[in-house]
Amino acid sequence: MQSTTRVALDAMGGDNAPAEVVKGAVDAVNKRDDIKIFLVGQKESVERELSQYTYPDGQIEIVDAPEVIEMAEPPVVAIRRKKQSSIVVGMNMVKNKEADAFVSAGSSGAVLVGGQVIVGRIKGIQRPPLAPLIPTERGVSLLIDCGANVDARAEHLVQFAKMGSIYMEHVVGVKNPKVALVNIGAEEEKGNALVKETMPLLRECTDINFVGSIEARDIPKGDADVIVCEAFTGNVILKLYEGLSSTLIGVIKKGLMSTLKSKIGAALALPALKNTLKSFDATEYGGAPLLGLNGLVVKTHGSSKAKEITNSVFQCVTFKEKEINDKIKEYIINKPAD
Amino acid sequence: MQSTTRVALDAMGGDNAPAEVVKGAVDAVNKRDDIKIFLVGQKESVERELSQYTYPDGQIEIVDAPEVIEMAEPPVVAIRRKKQSSIVVGMNMVKNKEADAFVSAGSSGAVLVGGQVIVGRIKGIQRPPLAPLIPTERGVSLLIDCGANVDARAEHLVQFAKMGSIYMEHVVGVKNPKVALVNIGAEEEKGNALVKETMPLLRECTDINFVGSIEARDIPKGDADVIVCEAFTGNVILKLYEGLSSTLIGVIKKGLMSTLKSKIGAALALPALKNTLKSFDATEYGGAPLLGLNGLVVKTHGSSKAKEITNSVFQCVTFKEKEINDKIKEYIINKPAD
Repeated sequence: MQSTTRVALDAMGGDNAPAEVVKGAVDAVNKRDDIKIFLVGQKESVERELSQYTYPDGQIEIVDAPEVIEMAEPPVVAIRRKKQSSIVVGMNMVKNKEADAFVSAGSSGAVLVGGQVIVGRIKGIQRPPLAPLIPTERGVSLLIDCGANVDARAEHLVQFAKMGSIYMEHVVGVKNPKVALVNIGAEEEKGNALVKETMPLLRECTDINFVGSIEARDIPKGDADVIVCEAFTGNVILKLYEGLSSTLIGVIKKGLMSTLKSKIGAALALPALKNTLKSFDATEYGGAPLLGLNGLVVKTHGSSKAKEITNSVFQCVTFKEKEINDKIKEYIINKPAD
Repeated sequence: MQSTTRVALDAMGGDNAPAEVVKGAVDAVNKRDDIKIFLVGQKESVERELSQYTYPDGQIEIVDAPEVIEMAEPPVVAIRRKKQSSIVVGMNMVKNKEADAFVSAGSSGAVLVGGQVIVGRIKGIQRPPLAPLIPTERGVSLLIDCGANVDARAEHLVQFAKMGSIYMEHVVGVKNPKVALVNIGAEEEKGNALVKETMPLLRECTDINFVGSIEARDIPKGDADVIVCEAFTGNVILKLYEGLSSTLIGVIKKGLMSTLKSKIGAALALPALKNTLKSFDATEYGGAPLLGLNGLVVKTHGSSKAKEITNSVFQCVTFKEKEINDKIKEYIINKPAD
């Protein structure tokens, strides 16, 4: 007998809400029958979108949330005041065990704050990290933490390493994932104070495959599966990844369009090129999980289209099926005392 | 009457030494007669290279330095022990005013340590930052600091901002350069402890064009001319820039070569594409200056070819002509006491 994964989906979050979110939900339930989706948002506008589609009866339900948290609102204030917003309503469903997971393309800040304040941390987890997947030459790597935990301590990074390792192994399917700490050189004596304090602690962890330092230049090569760093560094890596990829692809497009000869060449090469670039797209794997919570919270890109929403829903199913949170709890119980 | 800029060039540093260094030196003196180059290195091997070329008599001189500092050597030990290495001999020439600048493609660590220990800091400069130029959609930006000053304090970052601004304005030629602090969001309340402490200090600087936070995603767009950050973050940005560019170009090449049709297209498009990608190459501007020293020290890429060496020599000329160090000293004297 199969169990059903219940996903609360923020129908109002992101640049393309509610249209792409609703389409993503419909695509998900049309592909799998072990999913129940709650579309959380302004009832009328969600209903209007949903009425365009056919889908298996009972697999999608609308949950009214008349308020919307805007991207620019201060997260803490928004979470406290807008009790009827899609983010607060959806997260409360996870808290009350009415849903297994909450997925949102909305305000990162509100999702991070809501995850901690409403859904709450697993006992023993000090800081829940946000862990997006980034594309590499070999597939994807998990970048942990890119969240709001700036000025993290060494012991937090050790927990990130362990949770990231569990996620990569069981959700993404990488056997014995290589875990590395972001550093500014491969030599043992390099690094800032945090890295120097964290390095020996990670070396002591016998339950992860820790391979030492990774320089930022080797991240795109896929030299490690789990890239551990504190949130400021992680955010810089993630944002630069996005910005530089977009700039470089722009520069290349400009080059391809600069002469008549190159335009003809571009027309011939484009289909193959698009295909290869698609492999360099981490959204295939879903959104960024906020790990270490009593339930799953997934943050997808603000610009998410239906495909990323659908993949994020599937990611929630794998997360539940593989009992990731039980594995995290087990680690917390068994780890040696600090 | 024109003055001559005297550049000590590390003939043994980098992957392509001495061949490309010597070629770069010859190209430089064949283009300008206001340069004197000292090729510092193992005399016989430098002589052998140099004998292939013709160049104006008296503009190149060999200075013997029988020892070589290897890339893997611990920098502090190497600088202390290998007194006859090209790096130590060349830096001593700057210290003793026998040369205006020292250029090396050798060990970054040894260049950074040597710069501080041998050449020495301008009085009042607390930490000399390493400031490479990175390519952007609009040209280049100065990334300051990428050196060895990890765990910098807010007051150091203020000095970086000022020195970077002077360099961009007078050496690169950007009028009233926009200075920004790397942050993880545009909002005032975002950032780690260092950023929160530095931000108000930079806002108070009336002698630079400070524009506030810059997110890593906006760096490649060229949204600021001087990108201020502490060295760990700067190193991550620089290395990721290199690694991701190389990975993306590799992925695109693979795409272009994946089908017969795309191969034909690639052949047609390649010349134009190469031309555009060349604009995305910061080595046109020379190497990374180590600022705030009693003289100029420039670190070029380990993989430097002759062109980058030549450009770095020209950079030294501009640095001297524009009296950058006098401008830095003037700033130190006039700035309000801490």
